[in-house]
Amino acid sequence: MKMALRACLRTKPGLTGLLSQLSCSGHAAARRAPALVAQRSSSSTSQKIKVDFDQSTGVAVMHMQSPPVNSLSLEFLTDVCIALEKLEMDKSCRGLVVTSSQPKVFSAGLDILDMYGKSPEHCAEFWKAVQEMWLKFYGSNMITIAAVNGSSPAGGCLLSMTCDYRIMADNPRYSIGLNETKLGIVAPFWFKDTMVNTVGHRATEMALQLGLLYSPAEALKIGLVDQLVHEDQVLTTATETMTKWLAIPDHARQLTKSMMRKPTIDKLAANREADVNNFVKFITKDSIQKSLGMYLEMLKRRKA
Amino acid sequence: MKMALRACLRTKPGLTGLLSQLSCSGHAAARRAPALVAQRSSSSTSQKIKVDFDQSTGVAVMHMQSPPVNSLSLEFLTDVCIALEKLEMDKSCRGLVVTSSQPKVFSAGLDILDMYGKSPEHCAEFWKAVQEMWLKFYGSNMITIAAVNGSSPAGGCLLSMTCDYRIMADNPRYSIGLNETKLGIVAPFWFKDTMVNTVGHRATEMALQLGLLYSPAEALKIGLVDQLVHEDQVLTTATETMTKWLAIPDHARQLTKSMMRKPTIDKLAANREADVNNFVKFITKDSIQKSLGMYLEMLKRRKA
Amino acid sequence: MKMALRACLRTKPGLTGLLSQLSCSGHAAARRAPALVAQRSSSSTSQKIKVDFDQSTGVAVMHMQSPPVNSLSLEFLTDVCIALEKLEMDKSCRGLVVTSSQPKVFSAGLDILDMYGKSPEHCAEFWKAVQEMWLKFYGSNMITIAAVNGSSPAGGCLLSMTCDYRIMADNPRYSIGLNETKLGIVAPFWFKDTMVNTVGHRATEMALQLGLLYSPAEALKIGLVDQLVHEDQVLTTATETMTKWLAIPDHARQLTKSMMRKPTIDKLAANREADVNNFVKFITKDSIQKSLGMYLEMLKRRKA
Repeated sequence: MKMALRACLRTKPGLTGLLSQLSCSGHAAARRAPALVAQRSSSSTSQKIKVDFDQSTGVAVMHMQSPPVNSLSLEFLTDVCIALEKLEMDKSCRGLVVTSSQPKVFSAGLDILDMYGKSPEHCAEFWKAVQEMWLKFYGSNMITIAAVNGSSPAGGCLLSMTCDYRIMADNPRYSIGLNETKLGIVAPFWFKDTMVNTVGHRATEMALQLGLLYSPAEALKIGLVDQLVHEDQVLTTATETMTKWLAIPDHARQLTKSMMRKPTIDKLAANREADVNNFVKFITKDSIQKSLGMYLEMLKRRKA
Repeated sequence: MKMALRACLRTKPGLTGLLSQLSCSGHAAARRAPALVAQRSSSSTSQKIKVDFDQSTGVAVMHMQSPPVNSLSLEFLTDVCIALEKLEMDKSCRGLVVTSSQPKVFSAGLDILDMYGKSPEHCAEFWKAVQEMWLKFYGSNMITIAAVNGSSPAGGCLLSMTCDYRIMADNPRYSIGLNETKLGIVAPFWFKDTMVNTVGHRATEMALQLGLLYSPAEALKIGLVDQLVHEDQVLTTATETMTKWLAIPDHARQLTKSMMRKPTIDKLAANREADVNNFVKFITKDSIQKSLGMYLEMLKRRKA
Repeated sequence: MKMALRACLRTKPGLTGLLSQLSCSGHAAARRAPALVAQRSSSSTSQKIKVDFDQSTGVAVMHMQSPPVNSLSLEFLTDVCIALEKLEMDKSCRGLVVTSSQPKVFSAGLDILDMYGKSPEHCAEFWKAVQEMWLKFYGSNMITIAAVNGSSPAGGCLLSMTCDYRIMADNPRYSIGLNETKLGIVAPFWFKDTMVNTVGHRATEMALQLGLLYSPAEALKIGLVDQLVHEDQVLTTATETMTKWLAIPDHARQLTKSMMRKPTIDKLAANREADVNNFVKFITKDSIQKSLGMYLEMLKRRKA
């Protein structure tokens, strides 16, 4: 069974339905069959993600399909990074849409089971994978659009913020935000930098201190997402939006994107090891492990 | 008689009532009696501030009560810093609400009489106290909420900006802003940094160049305050808001706050002496002293 | 014949009228006669700009009158810089309004003919002039107000962003923005820094990646301009606005402006030569020259 930082989900009453799905999370074998893919398209599917690449448009769609809530586990992050690297090296792939195949959730964030009761070595490996995902997405040469078709707390919010554009389902039962503080955890500096670059210093200060989860309407207001559309329209709107971005010459757009993001990327790239050590030292503390344990117990009792 | 940088008050017609109170400012003896305090609470009162600490909630309320307009004099700043340090060291105190006991004004800002006709040594001591207040408030481990129940120009605006959240009375006769430029004075870099962190670069550039004082509605719009409520509700709203902030684990919130503010704090901490020298050199200039003198004369004539 | 980066104009259907004027661009001799100037005013006129300075108010108005679209050519930039330096040294000149005498356009931006088919030496000289204009305007001690009475793409947008305040004609046929990416060109870091200082990081990231041109209403919404007025009122509103700014003591306002802008200015000042080399290396590339050539051909065909 895999569990993610789902505590956030408690804070929105409408999401209890999501929690009730946790009982399904053990049935890892019951995976979705790969969807049929259109002509002139290739589709590669790991257990946890499915990538449809349409060579006629140069646009790939990455479907996250790791039940029940696309937790960012070490295994899942590894799959995502491999898929991203593959697309990045394919010059014919110019744009990437990231979306979820799971109902009601985009991604519930980092997987607690990779931080609880694990060796320092495992925690370090896990954290390197989180860094790797951020570095690859935030620095991607592709046009990246997040089709946020469900709740997106913590690491899920981070993933969407690494993209160039965010379209969210206009369903008030969904929420998005970096809510780590509510669990007694501190968002690392590069989570913070990414959010400052997205919504500015003041909104970030308040969001991170309070571990705020925003409704889609609130998220739009502060600029955490760029556009709201009906749940059914998230993916098609992402595709339409992509067309506008594809009209821009790649080279100029890539250099511009790099100019905007390089200082933030360089900060982590120059401090990866210290950041890993910092995380491992923090997460393996008795007090933090105890909190995580109590939290997992609470989740189990809920499910029972 | 103590006078503050009240020139700002001239710019809002509705505030002439406040200026007319200057005639009372000599009656320093006519201090308010300490308010009755609730059970299980302690109350410490200097001449210029009263602190009510409710141990059952872990929240202290600091009432500024230095007639007529809570000018930030050397003496007042010293009292404030001592009180803040005391609360900071008390682990049971988790939150602080700052508000005014004076009618119509939160704080009118730095006291001109500590800058006019004084020795360079006195000016230096005064400026160190201003720095100290800022460093202590901006870096406080407590949750700090400004209950801005009146006008808050210059240093008063600075004080409110050091807090984690600002609730202002929705009375169009009140105003808030860093209006130093209008008096021929330049806000120092750390005033500027604090404002940039609050409302962003562009709004700060215009606000500081023009010495703008904002109505509550305007202040809300640019994000200089976070919430407007009826005058009677400022303090109760602050207390209710505090409850939400208290729900966040202290340790994670404090580390997050420090991550957001440390670079700004470090900048002043590393340059305190140069900043003091800079201030003393500027304020003791003949031209500036002359301006301050003319300004004080003007205030006296107004009162006559 | 002089041509500017006018490709942007294609993107707004309403601007085709502007493009059709290109046929006039060869008639460089048909310059406007200098306007009559008011009493107590001096007027200096180069071929491409006219400066009216009213000594009674201390305010100068710079009219850009380089047909057809105030392209920022080497010659024009040189004239502008000489005029600006003259005003800057005149202590009696406290404010400057920049506006256009050309119909429908404020400035169409950098002149392509100074970048196409020219020697590296010429390109370097041209780029130094662009830098010089930016350094002089962004660091001006005067109050600078842009009266944006027409479209203002690319370098025209940059020029307006260097000013302290931007008033734009509320005509939906006009647009403003840094649209370089659409032409395959990358806005240099100091264009980017200026925009970040104006509209923040996120709006800049999206604007620059997509080469967005904003309608006046959109520009107001993101803070790219400060105020919209009817086309006929742009200049008079600028003059009225100037009165408010003139009420602030010069010395304090200048120090404040410098405090806000110096870090950004220092960044270019310390890297001018590298920035020139960078530009020359980029613009003289075969692929870029080919693009510019095709673009010029396209403009010619349009005119035919």
